Amino acid sequence: MRHTDAMAPIYLGALDIGGTKLAATVANVSGPLARVVAPTARSGSERAVGEQAIALLEQACAHAGIDARRIARLGVSSCGPFVAAGGSIALVTPNLCGGLSGAADLPNDWTRIPLEAVLRERFADVVIRNDCIAALTGERSFGALQEEADCVYVTWSTGIGFGLCVDGHILLGKHGNAGHAGHMLLSGQSDALCGCGNRGDVEALVSGRNLGLRGGQGAAAIFAAARQGVAAERLLVEQAAHWFGKALYNLAATLDTRVFVIGGSVWMHHGDWLEALVRHEIASRLPALTAGVELKPAALGALVADIGALCLVLPSEWRRAWRQSQPWQALAG
Amino acid sequence: MRHTDAMAPIYLGALDIGGTKLAATVANVSGPLARVVAPTARSGSERAVGEQAIALLEQACAHAGIDARRIARLGVSSCGPFVAAGGSIALVTPNLCGGLSGAADLPNDWTRIPLEAVLRERFADVVIRNDCIAALTGERSFGALQEEADCVYVTWSTGIGFGLCVDGHILLGKHGNAGHAGHMLLSGQSDALCGCGNRGDVEALVSGRNLGLRGGQGAAAIFAAARQGVAAERLLVEQAAHWFGKALYNLAATLDTRVFVIGGSVWMHHGDWLEALVRHEIASRLPALTAGVELKPAALGALVADIGALCLVLPSEWRRAWRQSQPWQALAG
Repeated sequence: MRHTDAMAPIYLGALDIGGTKLAATVANVSGPLARVVAPTARSGSERAVGEQAIALLEQACAHAGIDARRIARLGVSSCGPFVAAGGSIALVTPNLCGGLSGAADLPNDWTRIPLEAVLRERFADVVIRNDCIAALTGERSFGALQEEADCVYVTWSTGIGFGLCVDGHILLGKHGNAGHAGHMLLSGQSDALCGCGNRGDVEALVSGRNLGLRGGQGAAAIFAAARQGVAAERLLVEQAAHWFGKALYNLAATLDTRVFVIGGSVWMHHGDWLEALVRHEIASRLPALTAGVELKPAALGALVADIGALCLVLPSEWRRAWRQSQPWQALAG
Repeated sequence: MRHTDAMAPIYLGALDIGGTKLAATVANVSGPLARVVAPTARSGSERAVGEQAIALLEQACAHAGIDARRIARLGVSSCGPFVAAGGSIALVTPNLCGGLSGAADLPNDWTRIPLEAVLRERFADVVIRNDCIAALTGERSFGALQEEADCVYVTWSTGIGFGLCVDGHILLGKHGNAGHAGHMLLSGQSDALCGCGNRGDVEALVSGRNLGLRGGQGAAAIFAAARQGVAAERLLVEQAAHWFGKALYNLAATLDTRVFVIGGSVWMHHGDWLEALVRHEIASRLPALTAGVELKPAALGALVADIGALCLVLPSEWRRAWRQSQPWQALAG
């Protein structure tokens, strides 16, 4: 792919920063040009993740045959939570920062990752959003939530995360942490323990990681056994689906949501048979708050974070063309 | 009080529609001129509440010596929930609509109250908001939430209600029902039953009405006994304060809220000793989501709904003057 505007071609950068992998994409008006992925840095100084992100962007630019200095805007989808550090966003992610949890399996003593500060040394125009907020932005631009004012993106995967939109406004909150409803308390008496320290929050009750811990095997094996009808796993997963439905109901009552779009590996593989259980937890409650609430599968699949990161900085005049050409399909190959 | 603009004086109307009383206020640039209150209509046709509201507005105008036809804009704070009925807001309030709950104590069979349709027959410019959203608007205009972008108003009274503001945007939702987080599920195993049918939601666990039902006496008596240290009531109220704190934590995690302003009769009378219990439920959780969260008492007291209703339609150029003159103080007398 080559750009066709010879005078002043605009290039966009996109980063998808997760707990296990980091992806860098460069795009122009025609669509994504190149994408490079690597395991997220876990050692070195607190600047390591930001510096790795810049290096991967430079690699992506090299693949595309352009100079990284020509990237005009950079959109970043990142794991959280965020804190404000000297006016810029830093990450305080428990599964990256060894200094937060004292987790022995992390080879660092980071207490915060100065992501925005490091990126801004190289890029003037940087927009950083929580990964589920970026995914919501992607689904609203090109996926299952186009033209939808009152909607929620939720991922059911290793963890549980949400991106929230009310009255057409995507919610950020004071530090950009709106949507951390995976840490909403649902069960007062539960012994299900979340990585954040909560007992009985959504993530403790529902996430793949926590089901794996409680079920004594990997989440994929638990869900497969449950689908085949093995009693213990079936009960564990059905209870999780009920809790997940209660969490969506809580958000519908709180935000007067019309549509939930559900992504993540659990829903992608098992939404077909879990959906009825989830719907029941919503539809069985006060009709004024629940009538007409819809559940839909996410449309952008595994690339939702990369596309979402691009959407954070996408010129509005590109959007219409991309809706038709869907140029991100090239990344999936 | 007389208006000073001889050419085209603007009058505003305000309605506070509650489950037990309905208040109508008329105001001009100098402030509220008159206020009339009556028990909310419970018999007649489904139009009765809307027609009563118009009649009370006319009475308030008569007191002020003006013609009700000169009311240019009408702000309405109303109990909910709302539904959309032919493009306008109708109320489906369980404690007003006898046809919803089949409650034998309501002398009507209403299934919805066509509030907006009836008011619009007389007033062209009508803004209707849930009562806690109106209260939030009032506190943001003249109370404890001025210049605050990420804030929540919560009332702890007979029921539990919320008004939500994120990034400076007051959340409405698809039918204006955002903030019904009193019906958020908190306890999976609880037998506390809410009027909406939920078990273990915030209102079932915390509201004055539900504590009264579970404690076998009026809520005021329960709180008074608890304050004096009577063991059973003390336990009941302390548990309620913990649940209330968990509800605020859930909203802080979901919306990344900075300030909660708390109103309602329970907090007004007992916030002094309950606050530490509530704070503990927030401050004991993940610092990235809870550090710096503040609790403040509501500033506008019993008139918050009336002031809030006025604020829904208040010209912005009046706001500065009213901040100084606080003309609503006259209503308190």
